Amino acid sequence: QGTRDHPPAQAALRERLLSAVVSCFKRHGAAAIDTPVLELRETLVGKYGEGTKLIYELQDQGGELLALRYDLTVPFARYLAMNKVTKMKRYHIAKVYRRDNPATTRGRYREFYQCDFDIAGQCDPMIPDAECLKIVHEILSDLQLGDFVIKVNDRRILNGVFAVCGVPESKFIPACSTVDKLDKVPWEEVRNEMVGEKGLSPEAADRIGEYVQLHGGLDLIEQLLQDPKLSQNKLAKEGLGDMKLLFEYLTLFGITGKISFDLSLARGLDYYTGVIFEAVLLQQDNEHVEEPVSVGSVAGGGRYDGLVGMFDPKGRKVPCVGVSIGIERIFSILEQRLEASGEKLRTTETQVLVATPQKDLLAARLKLISELWDAGIKAEMLYRKDPKLLKQLQYCEDTGIPLAAIVGEQELADGVVKLRDVATRKEVKV
Amino acid sequence: QGTRDHPPAQAALRERLLSAVVSCFKRHGAAAIDTPVLELRETLVGKYGEGTKLIYELQDQGGELLALRYDLTVPFARYLAMNKVTKMKRYHIAKVYRRDNPATTRGRYREFYQCDFDIAGQCDPMIPDAECLKIVHEILSDLQLGDFVIKVNDRRILNGVFAVCGVPESKFIPACSTVDKLDKVPWEEVRNEMVGEKGLSPEAADRIGEYVQLHGGLDLIEQLLQDPKLSQNKLAKEGLGDMKLLFEYLTLFGITGKISFDLSLARGLDYYTGVIFEAVLLQQDNEHVEEPVSVGSVAGGGRYDGLVGMFDPKGRKVPCVGVSIGIERIFSILEQRLEASGEKLRTTETQVLVATPQKDLLAARLKLISELWDAGIKAEMLYRKDPKLLKQLQYCEDTGIPLAAIVGEQELADGVVKLRDVATRKEVKV
Repeated sequence: QGTRDHPPAQAALRERLLSAVVSCFKRHGAAAIDTPVLELRETLVGKYGEGTKLIYELQDQGGELLALRYDLTVPFARYLAMNKVTKMKRYHIAKVYRRDNPATTRGRYREFYQCDFDIAGQCDPMIPDAECLKIVHEILSDLQLGDFVIKVNDRRILNGVFAVCGVPESKFIPACSTVDKLDKVPWEEVRNEMVGEKGLSPEAADRIGEYVQLHGGLDLIEQLLQDPKLSQNKLAKEGLGDMKLLFEYLTLFGITGKISFDLSLARGLDYYTGVIFEAVLLQQDNEHVEEPVSVGSVAGGGRYDGLVGMFDPKGRKVPCVGVSIGIERIFSILEQRLEASGEKLRTTETQVLVATPQKDLLAARLKLISELWDAGIKAEMLYRKDPKLLKQLQYCEDTGIPLAAIVGEQELADGVVKLRDVATRKEVKV
Repeated sequence: QGTRDHPPAQAALRERLLSAVVSCFKRHGAAAIDTPVLELRETLVGKYGEGTKLIYELQDQGGELLALRYDLTVPFARYLAMNKVTKMKRYHIAKVYRRDNPATTRGRYREFYQCDFDIAGQCDPMIPDAECLKIVHEILSDLQLGDFVIKVNDRRILNGVFAVCGVPESKFIPACSTVDKLDKVPWEEVRNEMVGEKGLSPEAADRIGEYVQLHGGLDLIEQLLQDPKLSQNKLAKEGLGDMKLLFEYLTLFGITGKISFDLSLARGLDYYTGVIFEAVLLQQDNEHVEEPVSVGSVAGGGRYDGLVGMFDPKGRKVPCVGVSIGIERIFSILEQRLEASGEKLRTTETQVLVATPQKDLLAARLKLISELWDAGIKAEMLYRKDPKLLKQLQYCEDTGIPLAAIVGEQELADGVVKLRDVATRKEVKV
């Protein structure tokens, strides 16, 4: 339940999609790494907040207690600490596992791909962070998914907001996870949860409400830097200063048009320590042509400067920032779009079918196809001794093979091959 | 234990290796599919003979009883039956899991890649079987792994041998798994196991010994077709007839030089029903240059006509033949060879580093690199506000980046970029 086979048509679409993502990651100079699907259970436990209960655990069959990886970020941090790597730009595309309630129609599965790009190492502020946003912008533009916006915030700003609104530090994380719901439910509900479940005072909640409903660009950053309360808070000031720097770099990249500084963005995971971001597609309610689906977030990430230190025996920190592309949701969109277009994706790359028009010519076909393979040509033949020519040509049409190389008795006698263009039926002897 | 991270250098070598294998599979017209790492436990149990005890099982956390896939063949058969697919040529490259005693120095892990190519569907005899052998030949030749031989046998011939030597049918499978050890231990030991553990009569064992130590080519097939006992056995006769046909096709492919009809080849898995084969590298004890390692089998496969039927509610059979490339062993060889050569494999594909020779030029770098990325150029820069030029050029040399695009104050004023060839130090203005 919650897993699926990918038949050839889906696998081909997925390959096309992943190759667009990989070529972007490579364009930014990332190296690939691979880590096991299995991790020690203790590596994963306590890293995902409420997600921890969704970890798939292996049976104790003697030996180590194992679990399936929940994401690619924690294994990456474990890898850096274990190998004492302090600087690295890597991408990793692999499956992760969550014992969640699957919602397969919305592209949510228990086994799904993640595509992560991360920059680890000491850097000057906001330079790698800006590159992560540039990557999201490039990928979403390349894939022509329609209009999108990348929301940006900073955990330090959020914590600063909580502090100046009178929230005790112990309640920062619960408050954060409540704010995170603002993209799905109205402020009133969020406020009720803060006051009811999370035990904040109504006054604090109202003050928070004034901040977290704000979003904008450089102007908003400037405004908050002048905010009499927030400008007095060390964390908020740092975060806002860096946010300003980030916008400066994004301006040089020419992508601020798609960026929104949004104080309601909180992100679920505990390990973020600085910039956080999330890209969402914007609904298009124009024609029926595009058939937009509500898919929510298609990319997200942020800065996590403390995670590697959790795996190092001496607690040595390696600052990291990274982005994860929500490939499953994007895949759902592309799949629906492909279906709507009626276009048929080829599942093979075969260039030529080796065919015979008469009987008893299997040997000739085998000899020719072997020559083609050895020359690097992608070639197929039917696995029949004496297939009908019509059936062979039909196979080409069904599978999109553009050429048929035909050897009949006459061709054999003349030492030629008849090359037929399947679509135009034009034939030449070679 | 028994798993490993693949750091960038290994991941790059692996990518190169897998891409050679995939391009061969695509050359033969295969489509890709993907199946989940998780299978229902009941799907896997009872398919692998003694291997069943090595299956990784997931903890019962409520819901289905799950296990990690043990190979790619059983999931493929399950896929065909579940989707009622009766004809398909597919490849699948993915990780499989075995709770085995790891022997990591010999390239044996608990998590490892398999690269499978299979042809499912009703075909005329030996045509797809011959193609599988051609594929093994192409891949091993392409990868320049040194001399190799592909041993071929047929389960029907083996069963015929057992029958005419007086082995009761119930002992065919145990006898088979004993014969399979002949490549590792001498005949005497195999004979002892047959008589002792497996309960065969000494006479039967001796008669088997006469057959299973034979290997050769077409001549041997002809000889056995004339064998007074074997030629009377229906199964053996069928198998030998098909073996003759197979050699005919392999002759047309021009690859019989590397093929050995070897009656000692038995293969461990229960599900084979016809042709079986295994490729082994031959030791080279010439110079130290090559540093050959004993790696055993590097590819194997065979025909399994009954497996799909086991998953079909009505038992409908789909004949299949396939090959699995032993990528981990090949990887070990290539890795050792690369190490011995001292060659350094690049882990990234970056074409140009954007650099500055003076301070306060971060904005110029960000602007230029953004233009390069948007033009599809693979470009990097150091994540520092004011890096030293020497450090930037050093980074190029360390990571193999061939070009540096330098923007200094003068270049900015002139509206040019200085393009430096890192190896030759030649510079041109563009």
